[in-house]
Amino acid sequence: MNKAWLDEIHWTDDGLVPVIAQQTGTDRVVMFAWMNRESLALSNASGYAVYWSRSRQKLWRKGEESGNSQKIISISVDCDADVILLEIEQEGGVACHTGRESCFYRTLDNGIWKENSPVLKDPAEMYQK
Amino acid sequence: MNKAWLDEIHWTDDGLVPVIAQQTGTDRVVMFAWMNRESLALSNASGYAVYWSRSRQKLWRKGEESGNSQKIISISVDCDADVILLEIEQEGGVACHTGRESCFYRTLDNGIWKENSPVLKDPAEMYQK
Repeated sequence: MNKAWLDEIHWTDDGLVPVIAQQTGTDRVVMFAWMNRESLALSNASGYAVYWSRSRQKLWRKGEESGNSQKIISISVDCDADVILLEIEQEGGVACHTGRESCFYRTLDNGIWKENSPVLKDPAEMYQK
Repeated sequence: MNKAWLDEIHWTDDGLVPVIAQQTGTDRVVMFAWMNRESLALSNASGYAVYWSRSRQKLWRKGEESGNSQKIISISVDCDADVILLEIEQEGGVACHTGRESCFYRTLDNGIWKENSPVLKDPAEMYQK
């Protein structure tokens, strides 16, 4: 398979690229994470988002624990070829480990971060085996 | 002024935080950049996006050269408090230095990055003094 499109990415010194995930339809930005070359190739091949966990230093198939996988609708790249934008269909409507639709659930309001959206799913339920 | 909200941000070792800019109304993701503490404080105080240019190592008032400033509608933060999402009103409708609405103007199509949106403004005009 032709991997020229992967060669066009400008990876960080650590071999990573930042990734923004946006929900198709509503266009809500739900998550920000990182990918390495392998995870971006796997994401494209499988049709589901696979990130690189910097804290665990391993591939992270989004939803592998929570069940909240992300089906990929499209993969875009920015002008400098160093940021990826994913249009995704969020399984279960919950991208955040707190049980919210989006990780960006706090908005600045007069100097205070205020919650802008509710918990849809109990994290304890999401992460039970 | 109370700066506790800035203390809640988890900055990188370089004192930066990644920032996603999203156009209000259309919800198109138009840009990705970085801020340091000073630029985030300035952004909030002025109501216009001020980034930190890593290549030039200085504050970058978006639009200072191109005229394409970004009026801030809201500032959100993610669950880990290490990514910022800006809802902005893009002056001139052009966020990208290539003259396009969004920096994310290429989408993967059968292994090739294909342009998904047109040039709206001639960069030569945008950057003339």
